[in-house]
Amino acid sequence: MTRPPLSPTPRSTLNREKQRAVYDRSELDAVLDGGLICHLGVVLDGAPVVLPTGYGRDGDTLYLHGSSGARSLRGADQVCVTVTLVDGVVYARSVFNHSMNYRSAVVHGQVRRVEEPAEKLHGLRVLTEHLSPGSWDHARQPSKRELAATAVLALDLTESSVKMRSGAPGDDEEDVTANLAWAGVLPIVTTWGAPVPASDLPIPAHVTNR
Amino acid sequence: MTRPPLSPTPRSTLNREKQRAVYDRSELDAVLDGGLICHLGVVLDGAPVVLPTGYGRDGDTLYLHGSSGARSLRGADQVCVTVTLVDGVVYARSVFNHSMNYRSAVVHGQVRRVEEPAEKLHGLRVLTEHLSPGSWDHARQPSKRELAATAVLALDLTESSVKMRSGAPGDDEEDVTANLAWAGVLPIVTTWGAPVPASDLPIPAHVTNR
Repeated sequence: MTRPPLSPTPRSTLNREKQRAVYDRSELDAVLDGGLICHLGVVLDGAPVVLPTGYGRDGDTLYLHGSSGARSLRGADQVCVTVTLVDGVVYARSVFNHSMNYRSAVVHGQVRRVEEPAEKLHGLRVLTEHLSPGSWDHARQPSKRELAATAVLALDLTESSVKMRSGAPGDDEEDVTANLAWAGVLPIVTTWGAPVPASDLPIPAHVTNR
Repeated sequence: MTRPPLSPTPRSTLNREKQRAVYDRSELDAVLDGGLICHLGVVLDGAPVVLPTGYGRDGDTLYLHGSSGARSLRGADQVCVTVTLVDGVVYARSVFNHSMNYRSAVVHGQVRRVEEPAEKLHGLRVLTEHLSPGSWDHARQPSKRELAATAVLALDLTESSVKMRSGAPGDDEEDVTANLAWAGVLPIVTTWGAPVPASDLPIPAHVTNR
């Protein structure tokens, strides 16, 4: 499947540590689909505000949601959405070369408030299925009142960039030769714990199999 | 120890979901000390930019760093730094009441570029010891050239807010009575994997004991 290339604008073209830039569209999808929350940046009264929030991807569209009255969403035309997966701490032979292994996606753009009822419901389904796959069909779907209380925003993925680092430390040759300090990677492993039921119904497969 | 209360300004006073706000200063420290990376928000050309980066806390000061030439740091007067710890997915009986268990800290303020050599070295030590406790003394410390290539920024923690959610789903009474869908929490567990050495030296205690 051919997808458009990333980084068509100056601000989504990486200037720092270019060797960590990835321009494969499928990598963007992988980072976005692999994360659970994003950090949404907006400008309020001229100052940046960054808040954690849920999201979901459908093709080239990222859906966000929040309370209809949330100040951070009301004035949010231009946004930046960042998803970061942290894979490990990189211990180098020098403090300077210490680093992290990570994959991050940064999406710039103007959000569109989704008002059309069918797309709004679709966006909420995408968001729900990202947070908790299987919940849309299992749980009670939104009432009219709940839909009205929820704002759904859509963001096009065209103006995005992906950055990642993996593997061993990048030490200076002199530090490797000196061999005075240990070097390696301490992986960070994120797993699901055992479900904590708040219901006497059997735990459904979409939860136990996650 | 008496610490100043949080949220002295309108923008660090939470307006949404006030029941999730926490005004205990020690909670701010706990979230910041418990995270590994932050999301740094700045305004560039009028638009928000959010990037993942390392940080470290010393008392009431948060230290950030980056390349001396990084565009996102050069013009960054007003910043917003957000640290989020994700603890679990909250499965409710309705889609609307699905949620996450999390702890997040949001710090607003004007960064100060640290130029004084002793404080710059101190800030780098704080940053290093946050990322990899024990590395400052174990690994080679920064050379003059490396120090010059690194920008260290300091941010006061006064204008901060903390938000958290924990525990069981908050379902509507009718949905509990109907008992048509399972509800509970799926915890997210983050652990350290086995170290991956890039050196034939023995793995030091500050890595194995982490």
